[in-house]
Amino acid sequence: MNDLLWPGDHRAGDLLTDAAVLDAMLAVEAAWSESLAAAGIFPSEAAVGRDALRVLVGDDDLAAITADAEAGGNPVIPLVRLLRDRLRPDRPEGRWLHRGLTSQDVVDSALMMGARDAVRTIRGQLLDQVALLAALAERHRGTPTVARTLTQHAVPTTFGHKAARWLAGVLDGYDDLARLVFPAQLGGASGTMAAAVELAGHLPDPAAAVRTAVAEAAARVGLDPADPWHTVRTPVTRVGDAVTGCTDAWGRLAGDVLTLSRPEVGEVSEGNGGGSSTMPHKANPTLSVLVRRAALAGPPLAATLHASAAGAVDERPPGEWHVEWATLRTLLRRAVVAGSQTTDLLRDLQVRPDRMAATLAAAEGVDAEQAGMVELAGRAPSADYLGLTDEYVDAVLARAAGVSREAES
Amino acid sequence: MNDLLWPGDHRAGDLLTDAAVLDAMLAVEAAWSESLAAAGIFPSEAAVGRDALRVLVGDDDLAAITADAEAGGNPVIPLVRLLRDRLRPDRPEGRWLHRGLTSQDVVDSALMMGARDAVRTIRGQLLDQVALLAALAERHRGTPTVARTLTQHAVPTTFGHKAARWLAGVLDGYDDLARLVFPAQLGGASGTMAAAVELAGHLPDPAAAVRTAVAEAAARVGLDPADPWHTVRTPVTRVGDAVTGCTDAWGRLAGDVLTLSRPEVGEVSEGNGGGSSTMPHKANPTLSVLVRRAALAGPPLAATLHASAAGAVDERPPGEWHVEWATLRTLLRRAVVAGSQTTDLLRDLQVRPDRMAATLAAAEGVDAEQAGMVELAGRAPSADYLGLTDEYVDAVLARAAGVSREAES
Amino acid sequence: MNDLLWPGDHRAGDLLTDAAVLDAMLAVEAAWSESLAAAGIFPSEAAVGRDALRVLVGDDDLAAITADAEAGGNPVIPLVRLLRDRLRPDRPEGRWLHRGLTSQDVVDSALMMGARDAVRTIRGQLLDQVALLAALAERHRGTPTVARTLTQHAVPTTFGHKAARWLAGVLDGYDDLARLVFPAQLGGASGTMAAAVELAGHLPDPAAAVRTAVAEAAARVGLDPADPWHTVRTPVTRVGDAVTGCTDAWGRLAGDVLTLSRPEVGEVSEGNGGGSSTMPHKANPTLSVLVRRAALAGPPLAATLHASAAGAVDERPPGEWHVEWATLRTLLRRAVVAGSQTTDLLRDLQVRPDRMAATLAAAEGVDAEQAGMVELAGRAPSADYLGLTDEYVDAVLARAAGVSREAES
Amino acid sequence: MNDLLWPGDHRAGDLLTDAAVLDAMLAVEAAWSESLAAAGIFPSEAAVGRDALRVLVGDDDLAAITADAEAGGNPVIPLVRLLRDRLRPDRPEGRWLHRGLTSQDVVDSALMMGARDAVRTIRGQLLDQVALLAALAERHRGTPTVARTLTQHAVPTTFGHKAARWLAGVLDGYDDLARLVFPAQLGGASGTMAAAVELAGHLPDPAAAVRTAVAEAAARVGLDPADPWHTVRTPVTRVGDAVTGCTDAWGRLAGDVLTLSRPEVGEVSEGNGGGSSTMPHKANPTLSVLVRRAALAGPPLAATLHASAAGAVDERPPGEWHVEWATLRTLLRRAVVAGSQTTDLLRDLQVRPDRMAATLAAAEGVDAEQAGMVELAGRAPSADYLGLTDEYVDAVLARAAGVSREAES
Repeated sequence: MNDLLWPGDHRAGDLLTDAAVLDAMLAVEAAWSESLAAAGIFPSEAAVGRDALRVLVGDDDLAAITADAEAGGNPVIPLVRLLRDRLRPDRPEGRWLHRGLTSQDVVDSALMMGARDAVRTIRGQLLDQVALLAALAERHRGTPTVARTLTQHAVPTTFGHKAARWLAGVLDGYDDLARLVFPAQLGGASGTMAAAVELAGHLPDPAAAVRTAVAEAAARVGLDPADPWHTVRTPVTRVGDAVTGCTDAWGRLAGDVLTLSRPEVGEVSEGNGGGSSTMPHKANPTLSVLVRRAALAGPPLAATLHASAAGAVDERPPGEWHVEWATLRTLLRRAVVAGSQTTDLLRDLQVRPDRMAATLAAAEGVDAEQAGMVELAGRAPSADYLGLTDEYVDAVLARAAGVSREAES
Repeated sequence: MNDLLWPGDHRAGDLLTDAAVLDAMLAVEAAWSESLAAAGIFPSEAAVGRDALRVLVGDDDLAAITADAEAGGNPVIPLVRLLRDRLRPDRPEGRWLHRGLTSQDVVDSALMMGARDAVRTIRGQLLDQVALLAALAERHRGTPTVARTLTQHAVPTTFGHKAARWLAGVLDGYDDLARLVFPAQLGGASGTMAAAVELAGHLPDPAAAVRTAVAEAAARVGLDPADPWHTVRTPVTRVGDAVTGCTDAWGRLAGDVLTLSRPEVGEVSEGNGGGSSTMPHKANPTLSVLVRRAALAGPPLAATLHASAAGAVDERPPGEWHVEWATLRTLLRRAVVAGSQTTDLLRDLQVRPDRMAATLAAAEGVDAEQAGMVELAGRAPSADYLGLTDEYVDAVLARAAGVSREAES
Repeated sequence: MNDLLWPGDHRAGDLLTDAAVLDAMLAVEAAWSESLAAAGIFPSEAAVGRDALRVLVGDDDLAAITADAEAGGNPVIPLVRLLRDRLRPDRPEGRWLHRGLTSQDVVDSALMMGARDAVRTIRGQLLDQVALLAALAERHRGTPTVARTLTQHAVPTTFGHKAARWLAGVLDGYDDLARLVFPAQLGGASGTMAAAVELAGHLPDPAAAVRTAVAEAAARVGLDPADPWHTVRTPVTRVGDAVTGCTDAWGRLAGDVLTLSRPEVGEVSEGNGGGSSTMPHKANPTLSVLVRRAALAGPPLAATLHASAAGAVDERPPGEWHVEWATLRTLLRRAVVAGSQTTDLLRDLQVRPDRMAATLAAAEGVDAEQAGMVELAGRAPSADYLGLTDEYVDAVLARAAGVSREAES
Repeated sequence: MNDLLWPGDHRAGDLLTDAAVLDAMLAVEAAWSESLAAAGIFPSEAAVGRDALRVLVGDDDLAAITADAEAGGNPVIPLVRLLRDRLRPDRPEGRWLHRGLTSQDVVDSALMMGARDAVRTIRGQLLDQVALLAALAERHRGTPTVARTLTQHAVPTTFGHKAARWLAGVLDGYDDLARLVFPAQLGGASGTMAAAVELAGHLPDPAAAVRTAVAEAAARVGLDPADPWHTVRTPVTRVGDAVTGCTDAWGRLAGDVLTLSRPEVGEVSEGNGGGSSTMPHKANPTLSVLVRRAALAGPPLAATLHASAAGAVDERPPGEWHVEWATLRTLLRRAVVAGSQTTDLLRDLQVRPDRMAATLAAAEGVDAEQAGMVELAGRAPSADYLGLTDEYVDAVLARAAGVSREAES
């Protein structure tokens, strides 16, 4: 894919590229034919494997399928036509291909496969970040720094506590991804599965045969089995919300890095700052800039998915479904890019305890609250006024350890 | 509250009104003082109950507090000033009030209390809807109707199946709400709890005493215990996303009602249609209109919460936190209103199986797919071409029964 | 109104409050009756003035109208019922009231009256800001400061140039508001004006009489004359976009103030910083915080208006119209509040040329680009490396002077 | 480009593709070098034309530039490096290339060139639509149909009047595009133009020379001359808002076509309905579906542009600028696709006056309002109850004629 206007896009690799989506659609068609043949609904000769379909579609075909997708409003129609033609309509593979399915089954299942892959990637990124942030919080649990509220110096805290807050956000993102499922979409023309049951009419229990075949088809493409959910778009909005929760967490820590790496603050810096086209001296916090960019882009895209879900009328809505595809792809690719950039950002983050100490020492009034407490309590002041920061760090570290342990097992 | 420009707003009652938020803020201050006194951190005379605070604040004060909130940017500052003044700063209650807290603790905890109440209400609405929709799906599992895709007639389905799809969306919404927690926010000036620990300095284990007090304070206001989450806004975005999932589900079924109650379709109608200011004959599907309105309003508000979460820099961000309050209130009140309207809509929904049958009988081409399958399979057509609709209805009804059972126990 | 969760809301005064909207709706009904009576379409006794209507509706009625608005989906239905009842249906005033109108006419015209008032207020705010910013740019056109790109020090600039950029944004906002029109909505049941023409049937030229009356009615409520635009929502989206352009401009300058007033930077500060509920020393940039808050809230609300416009099907859409009302009100009130806060912010802004000079002097590498140019050109470096900043300031000041002059005349 | 997940994307051709943006960036670099050489600021040998730059960059380079763009956060840095290298850094062309510019100048100017092209295309589409809709409104000004409000039959209107309302929206879109300007961005490192002035130091009036060169450079790439607007993003938000106004207008008419082409209504149909992957009989309103899709996608993207504008701090913001690029491209390409589809939709739209007449005749209560007016007025009813529809059509046609005339001249 590679997007000149979204630097870093290559980090998302083939994820949900046109070619990858096409390949996933072929996988769905193949799994369906194989599963229905295995269940005795299709003749056994109708089964056609993913590789057999793949060789039928060349790189040149993608452009034609894409262009032809407009006539019927989706890419499955020209794809099935092409496949049937090349499998030969007079042969079982060509004759039976896609029977019992509808375009939405193929598109939705393919998108769920892409979403599953994206989420798997992001979960891996989050685990890396959990390890990096846990180490950062541990290392700096005793590094004093000034807390800032509404841009102003407030009271002392530790940089470890700040890192633990970043980590808490990352862990929340991980938890939200962990509950996602990626259901196959297999329902036929309007979600009744009537065509497949009709084709299974010769079997003693057509319904059971179809259900078996559906479960097998889902398993073949690595999706969760599910009854048709054509207009119940919760699987899509949940993915959108959970992934946006991750970009929120990354955006927040990138925002802190941007603030703290201002020259006047200088408490952290990116390890490998980016250059400038005209100013040779500059070391820009480029990764943070690009991560923050993704955090700005995400919420409106997730909102589009909700608006589509809310308007999904009839048994297939006129437009609400169609707008989801590219929106979901964009949301997911950008999240994967930002996740990867965040890991790099954390891996190379330079922390300057000396600058933190100097700022804290020079900060006016950061002992004012403590002075008030001392007066109120009538006792000598404590040494550090760091409250429960250590306990809070411990609690987040324990949570992180649990997630890491669980992920390993 | 009552909003002339959001008809039906009264259904949300006192939820998160200015007065309710003020009352919740008083509850937080009271719970804090009582819990810290109980833990021996505050002198026992410093404990002041919710009722004792409530009598200090009159209806007239709300306007003044509201106006004075601007100077410091939040309503807690003038509220605490007023309370201390009326409790008398020279007496323990006045002297110790709010010590150890920060404005954000009070506002966030109060908003979480409101969110908890809203979600509790919505869960009740959803359970009512589950029962209504389950009955509707059961009653009409054998009512044939035409499925519509991209606005056009597709193949036969049953109205029970359609109702089951509505129900599936409502159940998804219920599940999303069920996992929400409503954490108290108790962290002090910048989330370190330093002031409270300082005040607990005379106790053998100040940290333990504070943790005990914090847990008790959370329990007193009915919130979940939590370490400070000042800039980790997941509790807020999760509420926003989950509630938007509910308005999605309602918007979708309201959209179907709007389509199906068009005079040319006439397959359903609202039981009590609304009138017109100039056309006496009209029976408008008003509830559906108003529910759909809420589904349009929700996603951008939820996106605002995500954008705020992603920008929550430092230990308290300059604006991102402040924009959440009214946004969350609006989102929640509108959801509660729409939920209530949806229940009424479903309770009185009129279904016309005769019109459905007539439309289906007259629909051109709805047997075309079946004819293709028959030709392919070389067998006589089945009687109804309804596929697995019955099984799908059963599956959703089983899920509904599980939710209802669990809610009762 | 006064909103505890939107500090500063009182600055918007009565603008578009429920009472103000109700009053505007009465004005529309009155103007209509008077104009149609004047044109001879209504009997002359049917004319009823705004004040005469106003006295019929007490403060208590507002709550009842609000609650009753739900049944028909809008507040005009219960309002007209109440008015007719109190004017007595057997008397001409009661009998003819609202004849020829539809609910949408009354609501849309009332909202346009509110929008007009809001925009007028904002234009006044912008003019004040133009004067303040012009003075600021003039005063500091020779105040060197460091330019910052991607948070890092870049090259020298002047604070006057920065202020001129703020001013350019404010001027853009002014220009966008200046082109807005506020059309009356007068179309009858579905925008055909059939009822009024029917009632004018006894006149020689009914169409001409109605057109005259419509123009007069618009003039009476201070709106622009217009053919019915029921489902062509451009007047609403244009207001939303233009006002969001203003909050963009304010948000940007508030964002700069927030950055520059960080203690580590300290180059500007708000004149009257806000306090803290627990930290006595803090002087928070509260106005900037609250302005930034509005800039975060605006874009999603404007997007809701566009989404509604895009979905305005039929001759009145089921929900898209209804969601606009409160959305527009919120957008406008928040803009008026932010505009007022921005004026205060600019009026009291403290600028610290000494800090700017110190930062610039200490900034590493800000002369690197110049060094490169010197090497390239093979000449001695210029004294200040400020390029055309002075000319740019002049250009914006000239534009500001033009706007100010035009506004005075 | 061609996007498998956005059927119809090919209609936008090369607009703002990576290759087109790259080419525009080359044009900016070339125009700058030529203009500065012409002004005597650069040595005359430093001038390098667009074609000379173009031949230096092969198809293979695009991928490398794209990947390398991440390090500095934008594609100009690797592009300039590559160009200098291939022009040879020891020769004037290589040595002087890009001197005085900053990355933002090149990216913003290139995007403005793309926006200008997109808007030019859309204006052409709108003019075609104006002609088609004017003919439609004229042809059907006497075709009675039923008006629908809140989905229900209201009163009679004409299809010509409905078409005229569609036309009014399209004309509003045209007007909004007509006021757009596309300013060049030429400001240097932080918008002061210091480097260019430094390089012009040998000339008698360096400032004047630079201003001349800037104006010429803008003209060479077909952009409007402008002082630097680095953080004043009004040119971007205005494009986003105006283009979204167009998708609103298209979405609205597509929504009407979708409703009216439901089989139960059958009053219009798309001329060339799209097929189905499994239901051979279906003639889907595919163009309307795809246009509506774009109308759903647009508003949140435009909101992203506003949010970015509002957060454009410092002299170049960390992320807000970067998120604009792909957002603007997506918004513009989708609008161009939707505009083209709308033209086709209108060109082939099939109108069924017989169905309209039948619906109107059968509609219950559509004469109720008239009956009320007749009773009120005490006169015999008029023949058609169409009010001023004819006059309203005339007014829109006059407006259309004015626009068409102006466009031709």
